[in-house]
Amino acid sequence: RFFYFLSKWTRLIFFVFPGHAEPIVRIFAYFYCTDSPIDHFGFLEDGTFKQRYLVADKHWQHPGGPVLFYTGNEGDITWFCNNTGFMWEIAEELGAMLVFAEHRYYGESLPFGPDSYSDSKHLNYLTSEQALADFAVLIQNLKSTVPGAQHSPVIAIGGSYGGMLSAWFRMKYPNIVVGALAASAPIWQFPGMVPCGDFYKIVTQDFAKSGYNCDASIRKSWNAIKNVSSTASGLQWLSEEFSLCTPLKNKIDALGFKNWLQETWVNLAMVDYPYEANFLQPLPRWPIQEVCKYLAFDSAVSDRQLLHGVSQAAKVYYNYTGSSSCLNTSQTATGSLGFLGWYYQACTEMVMPMCTDGVQDMFEPEEWNFQAFSDGCNALFGVRPRAEWAGTVYGGKDIASHSNIIFSNGGLDPWSAGGVTYNITDSLVSIMIPDGAHHLDLRYSNDRDTPSVRAARALEVKYFREWIHQAKTTPGTASTL
Amino acid sequence: RFFYFLSKWTRLIFFVFPGHAEPIVRIFAYFYCTDSPIDHFGFLEDGTFKQRYLVADKHWQHPGGPVLFYTGNEGDITWFCNNTGFMWEIAEELGAMLVFAEHRYYGESLPFGPDSYSDSKHLNYLTSEQALADFAVLIQNLKSTVPGAQHSPVIAIGGSYGGMLSAWFRMKYPNIVVGALAASAPIWQFPGMVPCGDFYKIVTQDFAKSGYNCDASIRKSWNAIKNVSSTASGLQWLSEEFSLCTPLKNKIDALGFKNWLQETWVNLAMVDYPYEANFLQPLPRWPIQEVCKYLAFDSAVSDRQLLHGVSQAAKVYYNYTGSSSCLNTSQTATGSLGFLGWYYQACTEMVMPMCTDGVQDMFEPEEWNFQAFSDGCNALFGVRPRAEWAGTVYGGKDIASHSNIIFSNGGLDPWSAGGVTYNITDSLVSIMIPDGAHHLDLRYSNDRDTPSVRAARALEVKYFREWIHQAKTTPGTASTL
Repeated sequence: RFFYFLSKWTRLIFFVFPGHAEPIVRIFAYFYCTDSPIDHFGFLEDGTFKQRYLVADKHWQHPGGPVLFYTGNEGDITWFCNNTGFMWEIAEELGAMLVFAEHRYYGESLPFGPDSYSDSKHLNYLTSEQALADFAVLIQNLKSTVPGAQHSPVIAIGGSYGGMLSAWFRMKYPNIVVGALAASAPIWQFPGMVPCGDFYKIVTQDFAKSGYNCDASIRKSWNAIKNVSSTASGLQWLSEEFSLCTPLKNKIDALGFKNWLQETWVNLAMVDYPYEANFLQPLPRWPIQEVCKYLAFDSAVSDRQLLHGVSQAAKVYYNYTGSSSCLNTSQTATGSLGFLGWYYQACTEMVMPMCTDGVQDMFEPEEWNFQAFSDGCNALFGVRPRAEWAGTVYGGKDIASHSNIIFSNGGLDPWSAGGVTYNITDSLVSIMIPDGAHHLDLRYSNDRDTPSVRAARALEVKYFREWIHQAKTTPGTASTL
Repeated sequence: RFFYFLSKWTRLIFFVFPGHAEPIVRIFAYFYCTDSPIDHFGFLEDGTFKQRYLVADKHWQHPGGPVLFYTGNEGDITWFCNNTGFMWEIAEELGAMLVFAEHRYYGESLPFGPDSYSDSKHLNYLTSEQALADFAVLIQNLKSTVPGAQHSPVIAIGGSYGGMLSAWFRMKYPNIVVGALAASAPIWQFPGMVPCGDFYKIVTQDFAKSGYNCDASIRKSWNAIKNVSSTASGLQWLSEEFSLCTPLKNKIDALGFKNWLQETWVNLAMVDYPYEANFLQPLPRWPIQEVCKYLAFDSAVSDRQLLHGVSQAAKVYYNYTGSSSCLNTSQTATGSLGFLGWYYQACTEMVMPMCTDGVQDMFEPEEWNFQAFSDGCNALFGVRPRAEWAGTVYGGKDIASHSNIIFSNGGLDPWSAGGVTYNITDSLVSIMIPDGAHHLDLRYSNDRDTPSVRAARALEVKYFREWIHQAKTTPGTASTL
């Protein structure tokens, strides 16, 4: 329960489930490591660490062919490498080298090895600025050591937090990358930039349009849980109904149970893909429609009837394959490195306000409470978040002077609430995928892909070609110098 | 002699002589302090320090009038405030507020008070990135607290290292400043960007064109010093001839003496202004012409005749007012904070290669030796410089995607060797002042100002107006949001 205070908001991770990756069978990437300074912004700590990156150069046309550079996010890079099929599919037509760079403190790129998470002293170098500097130094190293890469234009690609890094990488290091695709990147999910309730509104809309009374049933379920869990026998019934691995014992457990359910609905909104997929969990196509089949209740439904439906719905997410003997409510709150790292980042730079009102969304009302959040961070890590810093250092809404960034967003994806969903300038463009969930465009293509995501991918490649051409023909850029 | 290894190169400071400032009499600025995080890029060190800044708002047209923001460099901010007359002179016509922000670790803005320079642990936060973040946070604070400043466009202005900071500030924080004037800012004086010998070539050219055989005499003087200093009586003669406060005793002293002379010629090149001025020292107008009057020798001159001329020349620089009873060869190498801070910066990020060949310049040949430099830094501070970092983080020659930066350079200024002396794009422009020395354009206007510097200042103001207009009329910028 140590993470309870955080779980409500920041457990809204993007994706840190390395256990669920599809096996790397279709791709052929080489693993490398580069030595990167542990501290790019100070000189007292002069150690280096082994940063892992993967390279696939089968289709690379060298010298000078482009490099598609995945800016790794909060997890093992092999998982992102395997899940970013878009890059694998366009490598040949662009004659591109693929590089997937692991983010420091995740996967095997641990600055202090097993001690990296031991205390706040060792965690001190886990920041987005350090990660961007790692990427910059890595690319400079590749350009100076890989024959034929010296004048290769580099395009940054990333999804979710990795997409934020791609956008910021282009903003801060336009000398290193000629452009960036920031897929489903909520660069505006920071204090004062977007309403804190928009995220959960989108989750709610996804359910509202996927089945009769689907959002209304979920909205009612919280009170039903409260009623049922008020007695010991009710708690026992709930535990059995949901096949929980660890039965609920008291009100605290019931609170955790509600959070777990809330996260389940959020995760479903993120992975509401048009085909069977195994991204966070093995799931059917359009999984929210499947879920909503169990939630089509009229207002007269009893608490236990309603919750029976909810349990069936939850099992669509947690037991689609039928192989789970019980459901584990701490499943999305393990102490794994990926989680702990993201918690730390949320507790320092990545302050992303969220709130619910129970009216425009289907969740229990809860205001954004920065002070409580800060106190929790201080108790957990001994650090306090800096609410304004991300806006100051990455520009907030005032980014019009930058160039060559695509912001793609899925209309079903709650993270689009904090995304750039309109063109800012001719070269800071938005691509909307109305029926897309969380960075659908970065995934392998599929026969069931909707026209909107097919169009998005084609447009993205078109911009890539323009940036490459621009880099090759404009004096004073890394590719022509 | 501790600084000997550094003195040859990095003692080429820009200006850190707070003792020689003209008194602040003409200006009316208020002193303030803001609390800034000691470490913007990590959260373990969560302390703040008092950063000093000066504000003059007499002519400010608020709400919304522009802010001219001086990005302080390696010294006491009051000195820069007093020496940057250009800003004071244009405040009224632009209706601008003036802000002069002190650079951390200089003047009174000491992150750890008197302990700031006590060891490399305390020096760890002395970097340009931290300084830029200070400026960004300060401006955000001003905008949110000063009534009428919320939508004020801010223009960064700086000279020399401060000019580098201005340019980098616009590159890294275009959300905070709408443009930058980088006066005499050698942003390319880094490894691999410009030939290491160009700096001293320009010094030499200044002397070559300021009097008959002036450069040739100086080129010969080094051997003359070597000859004369080979005997004890010669050392005594030299010491008396130059009225040295501390007589030379051995060859090591003679080496230091030569370095001191070399720095003297460099400093003269930096301050070769068209009128009497007291910038680094009280000096006559066109001081190099005065110096060269004592150096117009033909080839037949004897060593002692030549050195007599050199001593007369040096005294133009060190004793123009006649008030010095002796010359102090350690004058430009004191252990004052300003120096020590710049040494540290040179030993970490600000790696600026310099070299001489004795043919295209008038100095003794000396190659750039990074390893020796690094070893010296390690011995002195326990840190090693990162030669490539400045180019990676600030873009090196690949800065064409940025906008709204003026690079002004004086043709007489040796630092123009590392400056941007041609237009990169329509909004990354160079302004050359052929007969100008080190950021002459930032100084108070003078009746003896040449047409070129008058034109430069007028053009700079024209750009300022354009940027202000642009900020006020373009959506998606801080001034219109």
